[in-house]
Amino acid sequence: MKIYEFRGFPNPARIRIALAEKDMLDQAEFISVNVPDGEHQSDAFRAKNPSATVPMLELEDGTCISECTAITEYLDHLDGSPTLTGSTPRQRARIHMMQRRAEAGLLDAVATYFHHATPGLGPDVEGYQCPDWGNHQKETALTGMRYLDGVLENQPWLAGDDFSMADITAFAGLIFAGFAQLGVPDSCANLRNWQDRMAQRPSVAALG
Amino acid sequence: MKIYEFRGFPNPARIRIALAEKDMLDQAEFISVNVPDGEHQSDAFRAKNPSATVPMLELEDGTCISECTAITEYLDHLDGSPTLTGSTPRQRARIHMMQRRAEAGLLDAVATYFHHATPGLGPDVEGYQCPDWGNHQKETALTGMRYLDGVLENQPWLAGDDFSMADITAFAGLIFAGFAQLGVPDSCANLRNWQDRMAQRPSVAALG
Ligand SMILES: N[C@@H](CCC(=O)N[C@@H](CS)C(=O)NCC(=O)O)C(=O)O
Ligand SMILES: N[C@@H](CCC(=O)N[C@@H](CS)C(=O)NCC(=O)O)C(=O)O
Repeated sequence: MKIYEFRGFPNPARIRIALAEKDMLDQAEFISVNVPDGEHQSDAFRAKNPSATVPMLELEDGTCISECTAITEYLDHLDGSPTLTGSTPRQRARIHMMQRRAEAGLLDAVATYFHHATPGLGPDVEGYQCPDWGNHQKETALTGMRYLDGVLENQPWLAGDDFSMADITAFAGLIFAGFAQLGVPDSCANLRNWQDRMAQRPSVAALG
Repeated sequence: MKIYEFRGFPNPARIRIALAEKDMLDQAEFISVNVPDGEHQSDAFRAKNPSATVPMLELEDGTCISECTAITEYLDHLDGSPTLTGSTPRQRARIHMMQRRAEAGLLDAVATYFHHATPGLGPDVEGYQCPDWGNHQKETALTGMRYLDGVLENQPWLAGDDFSMADITAFAGLIFAGFAQLGVPDSCANLRNWQDRMAQRPSVAALG
């Protein structure tokens, strides 16, 4: 399988972490798409992924899958033993709920702040910008950090006792927040502690 | 199980359709949350669902699950035979990808248009509004309709040969678009044809 990505960027990092957690890093061929240069917006890449985003998974038969949740579902079920997305209905429900909250309330909110209320990737890549909405999403992201901090008060990982896709999404959110110079509030001690534990996982350390 | 919802609203409709597709409507107790009156923003409801949205699933042990994708994953796996979210890794990947495209590119885009560029649910329920972003999301929704129309050129359902959660999400998007008086472009013949086929499914007809 091929993974189209741009190394160091937060959403591609989600798939590198998922691959490493599944011990499948060596099964993927990584293809770089130069997002800062706008290569993801080219006709050639859009033909594969109309959403014009990385990461994207391309299978041997040419099937192209975008969206980290979808790629993670694929990878996690390949060996018949889903550890990142849950194996019981209740686990699946909690993981997908917390994944979505981490995505909408942190990762995507930070991305919107970055792309709309800062210069982002520069005028050639950023088209329309809406600073008012971007700054509102900055507040959403800070609220999201406080919410996740509260969740971690009573449990080690975001969906409960076990590490999951929800943790990967939130960690990518904090990578992006660092990139956008949006700090985790000092009051979020649980979230900072969790971030340290995440950084110690071999899958995260392997990001380099 | 209990489903907190507001009847007729687009996101709760996703779960009614999923329940009906799984032949499980009679296993759910429906509890009305008066969204137009702002009841979803009450402390009592936020204690169960910090996202303050309907639908929400409450299990016998008090576990509360929000987000339609998470609730659908739960329902679809209860009988050990997932028909809405896919049973192979590839099916799961395609369904989650198309679900997310239908959500971000249509349903959530229409919702943002409605809540930000129209009076929405009125000043008591809508707090901050950003009309500029709302109108931009209207364009996103129209682009999303054209994209889905293209997908349906060569296949009967959004994730391929089989009906799935992706169709449910997109159909809820068109329910919301009707509500927000945002018409499907005349040029989208495949999407209109699909909408007619959706309306004929017993699960959709049961919405009333
Ligand atoms: N929801 C998408 C987000 C992907 C995404 O936005 N990736 C970024 C890189 S971190 C990107 O491609 N940005 C380019 C752009 O938005 O123009 C996913 O889960 O894959
Ligand atoms: N992404 C959520 C969306 C839920 C949602 O926005 N529901 C609407 C009703 S259709 C709602 O509760 N709106 C109230 C609000 O946003 O204040 C899901 O999948 O459940």
